[in-house]
Amino acid sequence: MSKSFDDLIAKVNSCGMKKVAVGVAQDAHVLEAVSVAKERNIADAILVGDEAKIKEVAASINVDVSRFQIIHEEDPYTAALKAVKLVHDGDADMYMKGVLDTKSFLKSVLDKEVGLRSGNPLSHVAVFEVPTVDHLLFLTDVAFIPYPTLEDKVHIIENTVTVAKACGIDMPKVAPLAAVEIVNPKMPATVEAGELTKMNDEGQITGCIVDGPLSLDLAIDKEAAAHKGAEGRKIVGDADILLFPDIHAGNLVYKCIVHTAEFKNGCILTGTTAPVILTSRSDSCETKVNSIALAAVVAEAMKN
Amino acid sequence: MSKSFDDLIAKVNSCGMKKVAVGVAQDAHVLEAVSVAKERNIADAILVGDEAKIKEVAASINVDVSRFQIIHEEDPYTAALKAVKLVHDGDADMYMKGVLDTKSFLKSVLDKEVGLRSGNPLSHVAVFEVPTVDHLLFLTDVAFIPYPTLEDKVHIIENTVTVAKACGIDMPKVAPLAAVEIVNPKMPATVEAGELTKMNDEGQITGCIVDGPLSLDLAIDKEAAAHKGAEGRKIVGDADILLFPDIHAGNLVYKCIVHTAEFKNGCILTGTTAPVILTSRSDSCETKVNSIALAAVVAEAMKN
Repeated sequence: MSKSFDDLIAKVNSCGMKKVAVGVAQDAHVLEAVSVAKERNIADAILVGDEAKIKEVAASINVDVSRFQIIHEEDPYTAALKAVKLVHDGDADMYMKGVLDTKSFLKSVLDKEVGLRSGNPLSHVAVFEVPTVDHLLFLTDVAFIPYPTLEDKVHIIENTVTVAKACGIDMPKVAPLAAVEIVNPKMPATVEAGELTKMNDEGQITGCIVDGPLSLDLAIDKEAAAHKGAEGRKIVGDADILLFPDIHAGNLVYKCIVHTAEFKNGCILTGTTAPVILTSRSDSCETKVNSIALAAVVAEAMKN
Repeated sequence: MSKSFDDLIAKVNSCGMKKVAVGVAQDAHVLEAVSVAKERNIADAILVGDEAKIKEVAASINVDVSRFQIIHEEDPYTAALKAVKLVHDGDADMYMKGVLDTKSFLKSVLDKEVGLRSGNPLSHVAVFEVPTVDHLLFLTDVAFIPYPTLEDKVHIIENTVTVAKACGIDMPKVAPLAAVEIVNPKMPATVEAGELTKMNDEGQITGCIVDGPLSLDLAIDKEAAAHKGAEGRKIVGDADILLFPDIHAGNLVYKCIVHTAEFKNGCILTGTTAPVILTSRSDSCETKVNSIALAAVVAEAMKN
């Protein structure tokens, strides 16, 4: 079981080298990240984009791109389609966004012919290594689905459980979060959390343990959970997956961790047939490299 | 301007000694906190409750209560009413919860004859000292109002601005938060954030600068805010007051900070005629002492 990003990277190093296909690769931040990923034996890359610009950008940040295969394509959206097709056809293992707007990038992910549709809706997972927690935390959905319905939440759980299992967690514990830990008919988030728990009890959501609603302390702080009394609870401060009621709660917590505490993290899109890396320009290089490592672990698990 | 809890405590030390009236004081955690507050010259206390039990609990944790006035009252709710009346009558400056359920405590706060009603609804503010931010952050409402309406949000801003001003911030910057920083008709939180900003521009909300919707990075991270482009913005990573869209978002962020990063914090209830301290049993002693210091600063400001 991977308890840290170092564990994840060690796991990646022990598998066959994975390949990330970058769509529109002429971007300094992305080239830096794939270069570090290559040096740390995390992943190789195929760079799709404007070859002259890729070389120019690489030279400006002292990155040696002669180590990578480059596929020349000047048109950004065509480059994205060519990159995602590499993953679709099995010539690469994961797909990463370069200097392309997010909307066009997602359009390429969902392309009916060369994209990575799985049938499930896409969702986002942010994985954190938090010093006070002795295992990785999977936060979802903090960036993609604004107001998930109950049905969306079931799919988000399925998508995220796949990622947690790829990280070696055989039976992930899923905490549907809220401000309180009891179902309150006046708080829809708590009602849906209770419904998800019931669906898990009745075998409609499998491969994981769901217990909610839970406040964040009961979900991730063993001492607080024991202190408050946790009788009859399946999760006692030991949740792996934190399911947020909506994007505001999820995104604010995510940014709170990133912008106040700077804990290690990495993110991928899930619900696809291969992992998709959609990092933000403001992510650090370390976060981008962690995201590639996370994608590589998931790609390995999907092969088996 | 107080930029830390040490600053706040220094400010309290320079004022006349304030008095906290504790309702149902026979509680080890509360007695420990008022004892530390007394030793650090933050506040004196009047303990209302079962005198024999107060002395017994104090002895068991080596706290000397002979330094405090004790008012003997065995019945918990009557003790709460006697304590809140001390504040109502000006014989004490702030009111603190002892071993009484929250519902009864709030009933005493809102008692028509001896309580602390101000006309505004009650709200909660959590004040944090975050290492990456060079000033105190005021988070609201993370514990009290589940789904604030636009009108509630106006009152929450008013209540919290009072606290920020008491801490020396003349013109607090208020960030109504959301997952995104543009108004999106499909996201009610962003629409209300835009409305609050307009009400501030038009002079309906005064004594502060409101600018939203804002994502958390644009609200508290100057570098991220500059990076993303902040033209035309009144808040560029320098928000004082963080207004959450609902209790789930607020409470999850609050608990995230407390349970992963352990930054210094203190909380009070506002919207009353005198500050009210409603700490949770699981709060650390330091948090309780910080809450007393925060209440003392607000009590001093309310006198003037």
